[in-house]
Amino acid sequence: MDLKAYLEERRSLVNRALAAWLPAVRGPAFRVVQAMHYSLFAGGKRLRPILCLAAAEAVGGGQEEALPLACALEMIHTYSLIHDDLPAMDDDDLRRGQPTCHKQFDEATAILAGDGLLTEAFYTLAAAAPRFQGREAMLLEVQELLSEAAGYRGMVGGQMLDLMAEGRRITLKELEIVHRLKTGALLTAATRAGALAGGGSRRQVAALTAYGERFGLAFQITDDLLDVEGEAAEMGKAPGMDEKRQKATYPALLGLEASRQWAGHLVQEALAELEPFKERAAPLRELARYLLVRRS
Amino acid sequence: MDLKAYLEERRSLVNRALAAWLPAVRGPAFRVVQAMHYSLFAGGKRLRPILCLAAAEAVGGGQEEALPLACALEMIHTYSLIHDDLPAMDDDDLRRGQPTCHKQFDEATAILAGDGLLTEAFYTLAAAAPRFQGREAMLLEVQELLSEAAGYRGMVGGQMLDLMAEGRRITLKELEIVHRLKTGALLTAATRAGALAGGGSRRQVAALTAYGERFGLAFQITDDLLDVEGEAAEMGKAPGMDEKRQKATYPALLGLEASRQWAGHLVQEALAELEPFKERAAPLRELARYLLVRRS
Repeated sequence: MDLKAYLEERRSLVNRALAAWLPAVRGPAFRVVQAMHYSLFAGGKRLRPILCLAAAEAVGGGQEEALPLACALEMIHTYSLIHDDLPAMDDDDLRRGQPTCHKQFDEATAILAGDGLLTEAFYTLAAAAPRFQGREAMLLEVQELLSEAAGYRGMVGGQMLDLMAEGRRITLKELEIVHRLKTGALLTAATRAGALAGGGSRRQVAALTAYGERFGLAFQITDDLLDVEGEAAEMGKAPGMDEKRQKATYPALLGLEASRQWAGHLVQEALAELEPFKERAAPLRELARYLLVRRS
Repeated sequence: MDLKAYLEERRSLVNRALAAWLPAVRGPAFRVVQAMHYSLFAGGKRLRPILCLAAAEAVGGGQEEALPLACALEMIHTYSLIHDDLPAMDDDDLRRGQPTCHKQFDEATAILAGDGLLTEAFYTLAAAAPRFQGREAMLLEVQELLSEAAGYRGMVGGQMLDLMAEGRRITLKELEIVHRLKTGALLTAATRAGALAGGGSRRQVAALTAYGERFGLAFQITDDLLDVEGEAAEMGKAPGMDEKRQKATYPALLGLEASRQWAGHLVQEALAELEPFKERAAPLRELARYLLVRRS
């Protein structure tokens, strides 16, 4: 299959759905909606929504049900980027080569835009209820796993740990916990939610959840490798930032070669989970393989 | 009825439920959970949860279903206070006589604690699903209205407007929009959610929603009056802050006497909505009357 064409088609499907869920409304509080828009349409790869849609496809489900979940995932992801970039957090001025939300607007607006997107994710799930008639309990199960992945048991906890770890040496075990919470939890929720929405059996849901876990960790390791080896122009941000900030990374703790090997091993494990799905899992298969060659 | 005893009993019911939903867990990211706890148990009046429970009672519903909704409302309210107090927003050092979250912890932790509480509100709703078997569609309706009240269509939009209005003269009409979004939306959602969870008819839900709207506006007017007339010791915060900050208030725009009269008129309208509920609405009735004599 042509992964590039597939990704482009999915990305534009997701972008159209996001634009429909969050129209560029006017109205009294337009400034915060503008800021939400600015960050939501700042050129994201839409990886989480695409994983969600591909997992629904793998179990033979339609995109109609998975699409609002995919949008909710991207809103949660974008809110977390806006808040993580704030001066009190990672204090980043650029994201994907463009000013971060608080630089483009101001700090108060960025805090509110993040709050608005996080809330809108749960609004989107609730407002999608008519597509899930007779399956409302499943929709609530998806909501439970998304809020678990986003809150203090997941991303919020991971960001807290990451801040607490700054400036001190952490172990490989601790680094793994940070990443599992900070990025792994939502990536895993993406495939799990897609499998549920697509009507997968318990066994299928478990396999795609396991795929998501391996994918999430491999994603983070290759992200760290990119920071060491990548080129600014392709990445849209400056490489070498982790070292400058004395952030713990896999290459720093394990070395480059062992990190590469481990990522390869995780991708093999992820691929093994996909075997029962045959051709329907082709996109998930290509996405996992792509991790090992990605340049941005 | 003895309103004071009623409020105390309800408050402790809500506090026990909140403590059960958010136990003071240890674990790697304990710092953010501590901060969530700190603000959630900083002596709030639990007005929104109590309104929700009282509305469920008014339609003859049990407390079992309304209680998780009540907890979610208080988590949303507490998150909004934490974020509104941040230096980039209202920059407040004290809340109910105690250091605000970012003063007690730090700014990053406070941002994350707010994010964590907002997310936990939606987790609480989803995890309450087993209490709503066969009524999952209603639970999703409640979620839709809570997220609508919390997000850019409600509180987030109201706070944005409030910040945009700082330092310039606004009209009474604009002030009303700010308050309807910033505080009114969630108070209205509280009675509406309680009425829905309690199994109220469409007509009953509409009446208790209208009650909530009047209550919300009257609450804000009496809040402004308190800021002019209140005593610091009773309020737990310094009076006269609105004037110092040149914030638009009802007394400033309408005068003291007209503001008092308008609050009285709104309370009468709220009471009229309660007539069909007879004795079951006694707590809601006393709560509305109390607005006119409250000292904190």
